[in-house]
Amino acid sequence: MNEIIFLGTSSMAPTKDRNQPSVLLRHGGEIHMFDCGEGTQKQMKHAKVGPAKIKNIYISHWHGDHVIGLPGLIQTLAAGEYSGNLSVFGPEGTEKKLRQLLDVFPFENTFEITARDIKNEKVLETRDYVVHAKELRHSVKCFGYSFTEKDKVRINTEKLKALGLSEGPYLKEVIAGKDVKVGTKIVSQKDICTIKKGRKLTYITDTALCNEAIELAEGSDILICEATFGSALKEKAEERLHLTSMDAARIALESRSKKLILFHFSQRYESVSELEEEAKEIFPNTFSAYDLMKVRF
Amino acid sequence: MNEIIFLGTSSMAPTKDRNQPSVLLRHGGEIHMFDCGEGTQKQMKHAKVGPAKIKNIYISHWHGDHVIGLPGLIQTLAAGEYSGNLSVFGPEGTEKKLRQLLDVFPFENTFEITARDIKNEKVLETRDYVVHAKELRHSVKCFGYSFTEKDKVRINTEKLKALGLSEGPYLKEVIAGKDVKVGTKIVSQKDICTIKKGRKLTYITDTALCNEAIELAEGSDILICEATFGSALKEKAEERLHLTSMDAARIALESRSKKLILFHFSQRYESVSELEEEAKEIFPNTFSAYDLMKVRF
Repeated sequence: MNEIIFLGTSSMAPTKDRNQPSVLLRHGGEIHMFDCGEGTQKQMKHAKVGPAKIKNIYISHWHGDHVIGLPGLIQTLAAGEYSGNLSVFGPEGTEKKLRQLLDVFPFENTFEITARDIKNEKVLETRDYVVHAKELRHSVKCFGYSFTEKDKVRINTEKLKALGLSEGPYLKEVIAGKDVKVGTKIVSQKDICTIKKGRKLTYITDTALCNEAIELAEGSDILICEATFGSALKEKAEERLHLTSMDAARIALESRSKKLILFHFSQRYESVSELEEEAKEIFPNTFSAYDLMKVRF
Repeated sequence: MNEIIFLGTSSMAPTKDRNQPSVLLRHGGEIHMFDCGEGTQKQMKHAKVGPAKIKNIYISHWHGDHVIGLPGLIQTLAAGEYSGNLSVFGPEGTEKKLRQLLDVFPFENTFEITARDIKNEKVLETRDYVVHAKELRHSVKCFGYSFTEKDKVRINTEKLKALGLSEGPYLKEVIAGKDVKVGTKIVSQKDICTIKKGRKLTYITDTALCNEAIELAEGSDILICEATFGSALKEKAEERLHLTSMDAARIALESRSKKLILFHFSQRYESVSELEEEAKEIFPNTFSAYDLMKVRF
């Protein structure tokens, strides 16, 4: 089952109940990790998720609360005979910073880490999904990420039969989206295929309100977005280049996302229900995350 | 009240119930921290101890599990308008490593950090206490620490009266330990003073069994000592330069310590009662630490 697990939902400092940011996406037997705040590996123990399946880590930016969990996690992977090839994506300087960070703590690394500095780009593409990154607006270089499943197109044999068509090499082309002439008929995807629309997840933190966030989130099924402050602290949010929960709701609305999940709350909020309520005024399908919350994807 | 708080009692990897190593000593309004594993600042929230009073951090060695909590803690101190002068003591390379570590994460530091590379030495001495460090035997440079209160010598006015002596400037010299002639009498400390013996705390991790550990712990009231393994894994302990709980008990016994508290348990032990029992065969006054345990000092 594909699911999202919120390992940490605080902002800079942890609270008793909220760890620093990290969000997991379990997808097709792989784990994708968005940010890796201090204590992330312990949160994985609480969530009962082993680290062996971690494939890609997407770093939004290098403020400590989003990355301090990296060296501990990597050392635990090394000690646990991790056999994957770990990829770490992040803003300019990521490759150098990761090396500098791992160099501080003597340990024997047993596997390959590929760190890559990204820009506004398609970060990676596999047969099943595409990951895009877009630069946001923060006090240091900071990126949001979207993870989009590819549509799954399959031949619908009943439709095929109904049109009196038989199987053949032309079907591959139709699946790929081409219109193909079969005898006298023009056959296209919609005529004979079942299309399972891919789903889209977008992860946005830390940023001021900006068009880039809206563009990145366009048409998301699930938008995970920071809501550091409530509207009463709108000015502070602007000054610190963060979002209020109403800003997050605006991004969800304007990007025509389907569901908004707020996280990255300032430690000043013991309860975040007010932040959630404010967001719901603009975007009703809003939820606020708590640590270890799981959401089906 | 002076007390010891165990913030983390695991070894390399955390478990659901045990954080990576860190031990606090609250003493005379100051906080002394021994090691600072990942997640230490969150453990302080659970222990309801604010970080503002942290004065000195003593690092045993630079394996990640003992230090990864440093940058997060320091950044939280900076954000919280910490007004102290933080001292960090650790093995050769500490000053450089701390600088390298803090350099990875952009943040605005607001206070002075004094990092000092130590050797076998008296690390510091105040009016009230002395801290000593001694190199242990591990795969990287690693030090144990002892914290010793100075004896508190006060004039006992009843004793003074009983001897027919009156107050005067000579008392200062007697308090300092000199024998002073008053009239025809030789007056010494034991005659007219009450001596409150200072207490000694020793912190030992990570090390193979060695004389240095015994020497450092000599006469401790409380010896906090690693017990990574049980006796069944004695060979593994030796190979990895760690202690079994029985080794820790031997150190307690031979150093004539009064109380032994075990910590730094391998994650393989869900219960550590067997390790405690084994140690008790050698040194009966043994306890095993758990996270957030408080012990009066």
